[in-house]
Amino acid sequence: MEHWLTKRANLSPETTAVELDNGDAFTFLQLKQKAERFALQLANVHQQGHLAILSDNVADMIIAFWACTYLKVPTVFLNTRLTVTEWQQQCDDADVQLVLCADSYSSDAEQLLQSVYSFSRIHDLTQADTTLASTIDMDAVCSMMFTSGTTGRAKAVMQTFQNHWSSAVASALNLGLLPSDKWLICLPLFHISGLSTLFKSVIYGMPVYLMERFEEDKVHQAIMEKQVTIISVVAVTCERLLHRLGEARYPASFRCMLLGGGPAPKPLLERAKQQHVPIVQSYGMTETCSQIITLHAADALRKIGSAGKPLFTSSLQVLKDGRATLSNEVGEIVVKGPMVTNGYYQREEANLKAFQDGWLYTGDLGYLDEEGFLFVVDRRSDLIISGGENIYPAEIEDVLLSCEGVLEAGVTGMEDEKWGQVPIAFVVRTSEQVTAEYLLAYCQDKLASFKVPKRLIFRSQLPRNATGKLQRYKLKDF
Amino acid sequence: MEHWLTKRANLSPETTAVELDNGDAFTFLQLKQKAERFALQLANVHQQGHLAILSDNVADMIIAFWACTYLKVPTVFLNTRLTVTEWQQQCDDADVQLVLCADSYSSDAEQLLQSVYSFSRIHDLTQADTTLASTIDMDAVCSMMFTSGTTGRAKAVMQTFQNHWSSAVASALNLGLLPSDKWLICLPLFHISGLSTLFKSVIYGMPVYLMERFEEDKVHQAIMEKQVTIISVVAVTCERLLHRLGEARYPASFRCMLLGGGPAPKPLLERAKQQHVPIVQSYGMTETCSQIITLHAADALRKIGSAGKPLFTSSLQVLKDGRATLSNEVGEIVVKGPMVTNGYYQREEANLKAFQDGWLYTGDLGYLDEEGFLFVVDRRSDLIISGGENIYPAEIEDVLLSCEGVLEAGVTGMEDEKWGQVPIAFVVRTSEQVTAEYLLAYCQDKLASFKVPKRLIFRSQLPRNATGKLQRYKLKDF
Repeated sequence: MEHWLTKRANLSPETTAVELDNGDAFTFLQLKQKAERFALQLANVHQQGHLAILSDNVADMIIAFWACTYLKVPTVFLNTRLTVTEWQQQCDDADVQLVLCADSYSSDAEQLLQSVYSFSRIHDLTQADTTLASTIDMDAVCSMMFTSGTTGRAKAVMQTFQNHWSSAVASALNLGLLPSDKWLICLPLFHISGLSTLFKSVIYGMPVYLMERFEEDKVHQAIMEKQVTIISVVAVTCERLLHRLGEARYPASFRCMLLGGGPAPKPLLERAKQQHVPIVQSYGMTETCSQIITLHAADALRKIGSAGKPLFTSSLQVLKDGRATLSNEVGEIVVKGPMVTNGYYQREEANLKAFQDGWLYTGDLGYLDEEGFLFVVDRRSDLIISGGENIYPAEIEDVLLSCEGVLEAGVTGMEDEKWGQVPIAFVVRTSEQVTAEYLLAYCQDKLASFKVPKRLIFRSQLPRNATGKLQRYKLKDF
Repeated sequence: MEHWLTKRANLSPETTAVELDNGDAFTFLQLKQKAERFALQLANVHQQGHLAILSDNVADMIIAFWACTYLKVPTVFLNTRLTVTEWQQQCDDADVQLVLCADSYSSDAEQLLQSVYSFSRIHDLTQADTTLASTIDMDAVCSMMFTSGTTGRAKAVMQTFQNHWSSAVASALNLGLLPSDKWLICLPLFHISGLSTLFKSVIYGMPVYLMERFEEDKVHQAIMEKQVTIISVVAVTCERLLHRLGEARYPASFRCMLLGGGPAPKPLLERAKQQHVPIVQSYGMTETCSQIITLHAADALRKIGSAGKPLFTSSLQVLKDGRATLSNEVGEIVVKGPMVTNGYYQREEANLKAFQDGWLYTGDLGYLDEEGFLFVVDRRSDLIISGGENIYPAEIEDVLLSCEGVLEAGVTGMEDEKWGQVPIAFVVRTSEQVTAEYLLAYCQDKLASFKVPKRLIFRSQLPRNATGKLQRYKLKDF
């Protein structure tokens, strides 16, 4: 296929590609020109082998990424929240030879053993005399991201151009594609929820509205005033936006708040419904290059709490002990489709475990209802087993979150001599009048006794990763 | 990939798949059930080898086609306007073993040497005990259609599932995909313009509004009252619809009149513009599984007369003597993309000529303007060469059609001792007051003298194929 950005610049040269929070914007033709120029500058110091990008959501990050595609260089995305030691380990694991970073990360990044160049330093170079790629090799690795896996050493997911293409197409077939679409990115580009929108932008010819980070006032204002039609969120950012919205209404042109990054608390979905916010629930992960299962808008209210059905090109099974589960029986979520990664980079053992006959065993738990809609129960690694009973932290969190005065809730397992494990809860509350006794009584009312937290601890915030996803495994040390 | 219709019936069981002119309608779930039932009945008499369908646009034709996909049987589409002798030749050429026909064609079809079954006879069979396909083999041949080529023996174009998939996806990326979309089919399903819409329907989850044939009053009424958003037309049906529309306006939700099937007369496009009809010009053929080049709505008025740019996944060259032409220089249109056929069935010589290095040499003539927009000049086989000058019939027809009182015009070449060939024109006029002298004087005013028709002949109609495309090579005998 012709290079996507070249093609798009040819088809829609004057269409806005990127709109920035600071008022700057550039068209697809300008984006192509900037990326080509950057590629020719970068070619002075790097032409082959893996390259890492360490940056917040700034225009240069988009330009640098597309520049890498013009050099056929796979990009490894580093999470800016990690420590230098963690970056070093990921760069080593992914065979990174050169690190490109936003200027603000220069001094930290220079501690790495790899060559490090800030965006500014590349901009200062002359343009090398090199031929840029005019086509896309669909089977080539385009990007690598380390999974925000909750246990074990992080693994680099290899994402091919075919994976990204298939993800963008499958999403359009489900959500539709309006000439007026504009997608707001406030999640990090180094996570798949952010990056996948860049491909959609170029493949659809659609502007993205890029924010450096999630700030609820700015995001709210953009939805209200900037003709944004779609935004990707996780539960915690969704929560804050609904709170900020209050009694107001989003414009009618705002058609989709795409919710991913883990099971959504049901109280949140109920509130969104009351506030007329068009939430579209989805399920996906780094390994599936964003959503692979999405609830169609037509079913949103009827199937509240469900992640939906597999996208047109993907398939889903829920398995238990090697057999398909019955309706409403919890098992492991197993998926297939052209957007699913071929595997983790140089992690043969993990690959053997995760991939069988073309299916990805996600390790996540869920069930299918009578009509085949998926309900995600929990991450398997977060499962609490107490006296032989399975306890899903999300269920307890949902109950806590439905209680007035609870802002955030996180549940994890604590070792227990008698039961093996018991649940404990961490809560962010709105006022000190909300007591532990009150909350535990509330839980006793709604949960089987073995699910009622054995301890309840108040905190001012909970541990979350860069997308805002709750990191339950960190709760105990928090 | 999972079988498309099964998948769609799973994702959108209650969505309307087909709406018929007589008020009948059925959902995707019902379509799947009907197709499965028909497949199991058909399996009694046919399980392998090529099968032909001979039918007008009726519900059974859609059901029978999808049934064939459940049996993994390639379908050969026969043009109902041909003679029994022509059907016989096509069935032989395409190795057809069994012919399925609408009941109205039974007596004609029974003259064929193949086994012939009417839809009714299949409906009367019991269901065989066979396993239906649950997946689609993307590289398999799905359908074959004989090209309406203007010269030479018709060739069967092999269309794979991958071709049809790629066509549907590329079209959506260009036209967009609205939840409210409903596509009206009034062109024959045995032509690619009709058939391609069936794939779009199932892949998008979009209703089609099916008409047995083009009748301007009925089509007009459907656009006005039935929430149709898109219709595919050729120039002559477009012309009649604009005439029928008169001073009225289509509903705002009607967003696209997709015009294909040959170069569009410029006066027609100008009139559409005046009547606020959202014409989208395109270029495609049986070999490209419908449009491969389309004018984006954003450029429709600025680039009137252009067929647009290649769709996102396709590529275009205009070549002359083996080199790329300059801007505005006429050459042969050469295209590439995943929607382009792998070749003609058992026509090795034609394949060697038409396909080189993955490019399809269309035989059509056109040029690219400075911005890379394609203007289709003519079918190469229709080119008139007069005293060494190239004359494109469409140019002369455009002039004639711009003259008040001319309903239809067709121009072809006549042998001439002095010039080799000279153009002659056939005209359908609105009144006998429009004389040949008047029209020729009109042409002299607007055309170089060698382009002015040497003869002008009035007719009550012009020869057209089943889609309404002018058959210039038949003019001389008309």
